[in-house]
Amino acid sequence: MKKTCDILLKNAIVLTMDEELRQYEPGAVAVTGSEIAAVGPEAEMLSAYDARETVDCGGKVLMPGLINAHTHVPMTLMRGLADDLRLDVWLLGYMMPVEREFVSPDFVRLGTLLACAELIRTGVTCFADMFYFEEAVAKAAVEAGMRAVCGQTIVKFPAPDANSFEESLAAARDFIQRWKDHPLIVPAVSPHAPYTCTEEILHATAALAAEYDVPLHTHLAETALEVENMRAENGMPVIPYVRKHHLFDAKVLAAHCVHVDEGEIKTMQHNHVGVAHNPSSNLKLASGFAPVTKMLEAGLNVGIGTDGPASNNDLDMFEEIRLAAFIAKATSGDPTAIPASTALTMATRLGAQAMHQGHLIGSLEPGKRADLILVDTSPLHNQPRFRRDPNGIYAQLVYASKSTDVSDVMVNGKWLMRDHSLLTLDEQELLKQAEEYSRRIDTFLIKREQSLLSKLVAIGEGATQEESFEVQAKVRVQDTSPILSAIESSQIEILHTRHYHEFDTYFIFPDSTDGYLRYREDEFVGEDDPKGKVRYRLTLIGPAREHEFPSDVLLSRSRYLAPATHSLRFYREYFKPSSEVYIEKDRRRWRVLFQGTEFYINLDHVLNPDLGYFLEVKSRTWSRKDADHKAQIAIELIQFLGWSPERTVGRDYLELVEQV
Amino acid sequence: MKKTCDILLKNAIVLTMDEELRQYEPGAVAVTGSEIAAVGPEAEMLSAYDARETVDCGGKVLMPGLINAHTHVPMTLMRGLADDLRLDVWLLGYMMPVEREFVSPDFVRLGTLLACAELIRTGVTCFADMFYFEEAVAKAAVEAGMRAVCGQTIVKFPAPDANSFEESLAAARDFIQRWKDHPLIVPAVSPHAPYTCTEEILHATAALAAEYDVPLHTHLAETALEVENMRAENGMPVIPYVRKHHLFDAKVLAAHCVHVDEGEIKTMQHNHVGVAHNPSSNLKLASGFAPVTKMLEAGLNVGIGTDGPASNNDLDMFEEIRLAAFIAKATSGDPTAIPASTALTMATRLGAQAMHQGHLIGSLEPGKRADLILVDTSPLHNQPRFRRDPNGIYAQLVYASKSTDVSDVMVNGKWLMRDHSLLTLDEQELLKQAEEYSRRIDTFLIKREQSLLSKLVAIGEGATQEESFEVQAKVRVQDTSPILSAIESSQIEILHTRHYHEFDTYFIFPDSTDGYLRYREDEFVGEDDPKGKVRYRLTLIGPAREHEFPSDVLLSRSRYLAPATHSLRFYREYFKPSSEVYIEKDRRRWRVLFQGTEFYINLDHVLNPDLGYFLEVKSRTWSRKDADHKAQIAIELIQFLGWSPERTVGRDYLELVEQV
Repeated sequence: MKKTCDILLKNAIVLTMDEELRQYEPGAVAVTGSEIAAVGPEAEMLSAYDARETVDCGGKVLMPGLINAHTHVPMTLMRGLADDLRLDVWLLGYMMPVEREFVSPDFVRLGTLLACAELIRTGVTCFADMFYFEEAVAKAAVEAGMRAVCGQTIVKFPAPDANSFEESLAAARDFIQRWKDHPLIVPAVSPHAPYTCTEEILHATAALAAEYDVPLHTHLAETALEVENMRAENGMPVIPYVRKHHLFDAKVLAAHCVHVDEGEIKTMQHNHVGVAHNPSSNLKLASGFAPVTKMLEAGLNVGIGTDGPASNNDLDMFEEIRLAAFIAKATSGDPTAIPASTALTMATRLGAQAMHQGHLIGSLEPGKRADLILVDTSPLHNQPRFRRDPNGIYAQLVYASKSTDVSDVMVNGKWLMRDHSLLTLDEQELLKQAEEYSRRIDTFLIKREQSLLSKLVAIGEGATQEESFEVQAKVRVQDTSPILSAIESSQIEILHTRHYHEFDTYFIFPDSTDGYLRYREDEFVGEDDPKGKVRYRLTLIGPAREHEFPSDVLLSRSRYLAPATHSLRFYREYFKPSSEVYIEKDRRRWRVLFQGTEFYINLDHVLNPDLGYFLEVKSRTWSRKDADHKAQIAIELIQFLGWSPERTVGRDYLELVEQV
Repeated sequence: MKKTCDILLKNAIVLTMDEELRQYEPGAVAVTGSEIAAVGPEAEMLSAYDARETVDCGGKVLMPGLINAHTHVPMTLMRGLADDLRLDVWLLGYMMPVEREFVSPDFVRLGTLLACAELIRTGVTCFADMFYFEEAVAKAAVEAGMRAVCGQTIVKFPAPDANSFEESLAAARDFIQRWKDHPLIVPAVSPHAPYTCTEEILHATAALAAEYDVPLHTHLAETALEVENMRAENGMPVIPYVRKHHLFDAKVLAAHCVHVDEGEIKTMQHNHVGVAHNPSSNLKLASGFAPVTKMLEAGLNVGIGTDGPASNNDLDMFEEIRLAAFIAKATSGDPTAIPASTALTMATRLGAQAMHQGHLIGSLEPGKRADLILVDTSPLHNQPRFRRDPNGIYAQLVYASKSTDVSDVMVNGKWLMRDHSLLTLDEQELLKQAEEYSRRIDTFLIKREQSLLSKLVAIGEGATQEESFEVQAKVRVQDTSPILSAIESSQIEILHTRHYHEFDTYFIFPDSTDGYLRYREDEFVGEDDPKGKVRYRLTLIGPAREHEFPSDVLLSRSRYLAPATHSLRFYREYFKPSSEVYIEKDRRRWRVLFQGTEFYINLDHVLNPDLGYFLEVKSRTWSRKDADHKAQIAIELIQFLGWSPERTVGRDYLELVEQV
């Protein structure tokens, strides 16, 4: 008596990707409802089953759908936005400003649908996501018919979808409760990373995940800098730190794990942490080479992910699988490391296990969900085929197949793609909507890039504007002792004294109406201040608007001052100046009262380039009349200090140096 | 007055890849005959040219055809034959035996046509090849309409197309003379590598290339082992060695250059050596990471190649370009290393220059050959597009485009592919022929793999057969001094004495009728021999055929003895034994005459595992009657040496150890 099934897929090279890596050629798979009923040799299956529908696979490879174990699908809408940049410039300069401006449930929905279309086309049936408005990801995945583990992101800063971590934690709880029993979606919580979360967030998210028995999806030990900072701040590397803060109370899926040592690998294994290896992203962002072979040897479930499409720049798992094999070989010097069958297992069964979904997906076995794909190995780039070695078929898939060879995709027993045609999504319509977003993002960024100020504001440096009108005069001096004596005289009241060593880097831009940027390091050397303390400031200095005035002593310019929280290198790569000027000087500064008027007296020794000594007097002013008055006193002050206002020089050192 | 041209390609994103990386959008390219007449903004071009035919490129990218700077195209027919193996096992165990058996002009022609179909499909218009019967490559490339630099391989060993290097050098000269002025083919000479050539070959090939002013295409410094051996044998690394032997008298294209230091890079730059970087191959074979950034900084022309499709396993330059960018970033820790525009320049203009064809191809410039492609960036995996940054288009091509996005290919002014359809080749027919070859190669290898002997013969170890019939008896002994005294007695004439320390590794296979393999290291410790000298031997020992005999002293077995020229590791990976047994012993051996009959007396101390002392007597025999006679004397010899033949033990140590 024959059994019945809904669909019988026959005439295929069936790769089960099960523990024994069983293959059947020709093989067949029986599907009933959303489940795999049976897998086996074609002849046996044909005689055992009556099928409602029989599908001839035409000799293609029939295998479990690929599993993308770590991604941020809505970022399809930021693909190619900015590349070949260092992580901080890329993230703080482009990704985060655009996210702050554009990320909404609509953005997330569209980005997810675009991603699903690409994922289905390239043979992926399930992905582990992490983003904002994650419920919109879940809804869009369901619309596309895909399976997903959807992690609601939680960070310590305000996020596009929450003003505080408490708010997003509450939203995550709500999301998990409502989606917990969905046939396609596994809701999850995603504390973004140890360095973007507090200890409280790590503990609270792990407790939430444990309470509902859902996965916790996070980034761990992605860069050497993360580990270095972690050691400096907490005296331990990343894995012990997160364990200490109870993260492993949850079923964890940890992306990257590039910089983990053997002890940490053991800890992860002991705590059943699944790992998502992201070869392209780790290469492209120069994060390093994850110790995948060691993790596999230790028995960790290591899956493979694309990471977000903005750091890849696509969602092509075939590229990732090949790279996983390639990198393991090249870094170990052993070409037998991560052979093709292992790489493909990572992208299927091990990936499912890493996401804590191994009971449902990852291999073609009776009782598992019918998530499967057909891959055509007949195209030219994958021929001829040799049959001597049963591992040959894995090598074909890993080293020669392209994602475009995937012809058919089924998830949960339903076809999502047949013969290269998507059944659940309208690509052209999605592309049209994406174009509209890219146009808006382009406009936003182009406008921002038009002015230094908007670029400065975009990276959230908290720049404060200061439109200054100054009466200013600068003279070159040879001998400083008369000046020092004069300042000490009773006609000058000293309000405040400072002594700095100033290291200035000026960024010059082709369009001088933009002004220029000054990155200044003030090292305090005065006795009243902590010696060696350094203050870093970034100042955007607008072009000077000069006024006719005796002895050239009035000018006004806008300034935007911001604490420089990043490195000079960061600003250099972000602002891309056309040239730079470096000036180093010793500055003694006095805030004084002279004839009842407040002045700054700067006595500067310009050391590099070696320009000698300068005396500068400055006073803020607010009206033409006040300026008239102060300019006169400034001249008298210079004379009082022993110099002639006729000898004033160019207004700032930048101009002097450029003249050199 | 308008100028005329044959074809005007309009409505394209034109990437010239010239020195200034000029782009035109919308741009146009005018082609006349085989040449590019002009390149520029569409409006200017439309008003300047009357075209016989105008092609609307539909907003696709129009750029120079990609240049595959190093490959072995006929190896398409060996794609996927053997993977995840170490270089020596892969090369000596699989590639070379199959080449010896199958490589012919017909094989080369078919392999080249298959490769051309794949290359055209993936946007390659020119390739630098190196193989045997290179004229067949040239003919097939012309048939496909492709441009190629074809290097006739020269090695110091007999090759599939020549019995000696003199013969192949003469063939190369002949080939160069006949093809020197071909519009598509640049003939070249290819001394394979320093370690497969003599100094005489290096000198002679360089002289030949210089005489005809054609390129010399070779492999240099691919593996660390090559450099290590070079240093050991010649006291210098690879680049100074080949320079010393006049290689750089020619215009050299050097593939790989993975292990070159900064001095060598300078030498290469000084000698105008072009480099072909092969990222996939270097990763897959675990050769290492070539110092590409340093080579580029030094001003070297570094192109990109796929290497042969058997070590890649395809001819997809899009993968290689992306990897070139990725690897540079990951190995330097700097994500700004080799940005997309540089990677794409390597695959076009720099590749052309590396092949010494920069005057003809590599960029879209008036007067250069009309070798160009259209790439469609509209598919989902490459959308949306941002226009803010002019480098964005390079990033799209490098990080998100797939080779399948190439829609149209023109070489020398002629279309080879239009809208994804090949115009010069019949893919289905080629695939049919390839299938026939793969079937034959499969049969050859499957047959070979059926017996250990054919596997042994396949790697050309020069195994010599020796069917031995031996009278043999072995007894376990406690005290060796009586034996030593007895041997010294006058009734025994000692012909020869040896003393070894023997390290034996036995490879055991599931099918015992195969016999087993013994890898033996004989370290000489006797006084007559150079102490510390080690002999490595591989012996295939057939199953013993036993004969009824008193005291079990006769058996016969076939043996194949070969000097073991490779490492134990090599044989382990090549033969893939199901288990191994290791035995270490001290052996004193005497060849003696006893009762007028020649015997070997072995006094063995089995050290690991610790089995104690054994006395073994052996004599060769040829007939049953002779065996009867010798068996009797053997018993007497054992008795003479103080032991009882009733105490004989298992025939060889392998069996004894397996019983333990």
